[in-house]
Amino acid sequence: MTSPRIEPFKPLTERIERDIMDLARIRDADNPGWTREVFSSSYRESREWIGAKMSDAGLEVHRDETGNIVGVLHGSSPSAPALVTGSHTDTVVGGGRFDGVVGVLGSLELVRQLRERNMTLTRDLIVVDFLGEESNDFGLSCLGSRALAGELTSLDFDRRNGDGIRLGDTYTEFGLDPSDVLCADWARRLPLHCYMELHIEQGPLLRRKEASIGIVTAIAGIERLIAYFEGRPDHAGTTPMDDRRDAMVAAAQAVLSVQREGCGAPVHGVATTTRLASLPASPNVVPGAVQLRAEMRSIDDEWFSAAKRRLAAEIVSKAREQHVDVKLEWTSDNPIVATSGDIHDVVARSADSNGLTWEAVPSGATHDAVHFSRLCPMGMIFIPSLNGRSHCPEEWTDFSEISAGVQVLGSSLLALDKEDHVS
Amino acid sequence: MTSPRIEPFKPLTERIERDIMDLARIRDADNPGWTREVFSSSYRESREWIGAKMSDAGLEVHRDETGNIVGVLHGSSPSAPALVTGSHTDTVVGGGRFDGVVGVLGSLELVRQLRERNMTLTRDLIVVDFLGEESNDFGLSCLGSRALAGELTSLDFDRRNGDGIRLGDTYTEFGLDPSDVLCADWARRLPLHCYMELHIEQGPLLRRKEASIGIVTAIAGIERLIAYFEGRPDHAGTTPMDDRRDAMVAAAQAVLSVQREGCGAPVHGVATTTRLASLPASPNVVPGAVQLRAEMRSIDDEWFSAAKRRLAAEIVSKAREQHVDVKLEWTSDNPIVATSGDIHDVVARSADSNGLTWEAVPSGATHDAVHFSRLCPMGMIFIPSLNGRSHCPEEWTDFSEISAGVQVLGSSLLALDKEDHVS
Repeated sequence: MTSPRIEPFKPLTERIERDIMDLARIRDADNPGWTREVFSSSYRESREWIGAKMSDAGLEVHRDETGNIVGVLHGSSPSAPALVTGSHTDTVVGGGRFDGVVGVLGSLELVRQLRERNMTLTRDLIVVDFLGEESNDFGLSCLGSRALAGELTSLDFDRRNGDGIRLGDTYTEFGLDPSDVLCADWARRLPLHCYMELHIEQGPLLRRKEASIGIVTAIAGIERLIAYFEGRPDHAGTTPMDDRRDAMVAAAQAVLSVQREGCGAPVHGVATTTRLASLPASPNVVPGAVQLRAEMRSIDDEWFSAAKRRLAAEIVSKAREQHVDVKLEWTSDNPIVATSGDIHDVVARSADSNGLTWEAVPSGATHDAVHFSRLCPMGMIFIPSLNGRSHCPEEWTDFSEISAGVQVLGSSLLALDKEDHVS
Repeated sequence: MTSPRIEPFKPLTERIERDIMDLARIRDADNPGWTREVFSSSYRESREWIGAKMSDAGLEVHRDETGNIVGVLHGSSPSAPALVTGSHTDTVVGGGRFDGVVGVLGSLELVRQLRERNMTLTRDLIVVDFLGEESNDFGLSCLGSRALAGELTSLDFDRRNGDGIRLGDTYTEFGLDPSDVLCADWARRLPLHCYMELHIEQGPLLRRKEASIGIVTAIAGIERLIAYFEGRPDHAGTTPMDDRRDAMVAAAQAVLSVQREGCGAPVHGVATTTRLASLPASPNVVPGAVQLRAEMRSIDDEWFSAAKRRLAAEIVSKAREQHVDVKLEWTSDNPIVATSGDIHDVVARSADSNGLTWEAVPSGATHDAVHFSRLCPMGMIFIPSLNGRSHCPEEWTDFSEISAGVQVLGSSLLALDKEDHVS
């Protein structure tokens, strides 16, 4: 790759702020924070608003077969592989105003800037608001980007939510024909140059390091563990301590082992016990059966497999001390996804040119970028999250920080537009 | 107290076995084991059967105002303070055939023996099958003995079970007028000599010490703890380990502290975490709030209060290391109840006279005897439980062992009948 000149690029912060605050009004009033769950009526309403906003910005807009809102800014060379950017605008229950939203609405300010300055790109710039990125009750996140990458299957339509409703029927209810949903293949048919996503960090590293921009090195893989502890339900009053097979004690040891393993991880590895459930819940019984759910995340493959082995061995050996049997079930949620080195370099130089400090950081959360990385080189830009909080009403990023992110996104895309090849 | 001669006493094992097996047939077929919960239709049926069995044995039977089945064998001196023995015949869901049952049906064999041998006691012998001794969904055990001791109040009638049904209405439905239930005061009006209860041990000590008879030294007090851990719900993927306030980790530390405290207890102190519940149960969130329920039991007052203090301090200090706040709520379920020293001596001599080995043991479980101890001197005889198991279908005591218990109960009551005073 050559090193094209980075052009400084100045978005209007007020316009970004107004858009974000306008979208925040479209929310489920029955829930706390800024709740706009995929397939909900507030989400439906917000998608009308987003489509109109994209048109206003000057994009040629359509909804694709799988429910993504896609806006195209045509470049001067229609056959050149396209630039893609985007994120999502759905939120979790009690979520915030910035997660996903800054990537979509920031891109619109970028498009407005390009048009107002009569800057025509060589390549098409495709802005996508992906359908339903957040975890949902069907247990499947990143619906839109997953479908574009060809990773959604008809089997997924049989997933049911807590009310027993099929995902397929939910698509239909939302106005999307499930058989069409799987046919959304524009991203696989078109030649694509690269994908870039601007997102809030959702963690505390950037603020802590006083950096304006995070350049994502890799998106963490997720391994999920369910551990079933089977001891013996005994009378809690009459069974001497040394005669017990206490599944709760074995599970508590495992919680601490999970934490210990996470604390020993290099470069943002984490490990979390998210849930512990005991059966039966009688007040006079030594717990005979406990189920533990944990997850580990890392961007270091070598550590990951070693840590899983160590953790499994430690859980089993500690359980054995309590005479408790344990069965471990691992599932891999997604593998570690590395970002493009070329994009990393362009973003670094863009930040430098714009006089913005940056840090290379991992992403502990998954993003639509994980799925888009199957289709073309991928890069992500992070901007700071106040106190690292996200998925809560307190989620906050200053609008000047968002503006800085859009600035670096814009400079980077302008530079990448001129690159013949990205890898 | 003088030392009257202990008369050997030989119950018929086959009759005890037949009675126990006959009662075992009356059970809730929709549940595992031998389920006969208080107020259930199988319990109602069993009480008809018990009343008839008591009459057959030669007792004058009535149901008292609070639902206990009371059988009287009149002695030669109607004004002499009466002997009382009994236990219960309700079981927990999935329970066994012996818990409580041996004390009631064993007493009937004792009565039959007395009548067949034309042995008339000086005192009245009152046999009681107490209503609902087991823990129930209303959170109140020992309903019948509690009422006789004057420890049931009209406030208790407002307790509701999981279906929202009032305890008071449940009494009515069972054919007992709640206002009458509180008037069951025969045990407080009559002069009482002493109370004795034969029960399975529900623990492993007697089998381990190869003793046929356990003489209960005290019934353990129970202190219950609810600990509320409040941390911060953070994204499990993006929040570094050292930046967390993980309520689950703090709770897991507490589970181990509870166990450690129990293991350090003298003379059958125990401590158990019976339940742990986390909210919310999202798969991607560091648990922000966890509730822990634990109980401690001991017959050693001094250790008890020191252990509670130590445990509370340790839980708080370990939680602080995780930056987690914790609130502790202690409730005292029942205090330590010592048994009568005189009865202890009589039982020991009875066992010796009958050629049976015995051990002084604590009772980790509560019994109707706890409440009857408010009314007169109280003693308990334990017989071994196979593998210490109870409250499960595997609960087992050999019929020869039950017979040995009835033998010692009989010898002891015969001896106590001749005592002028017991303390």
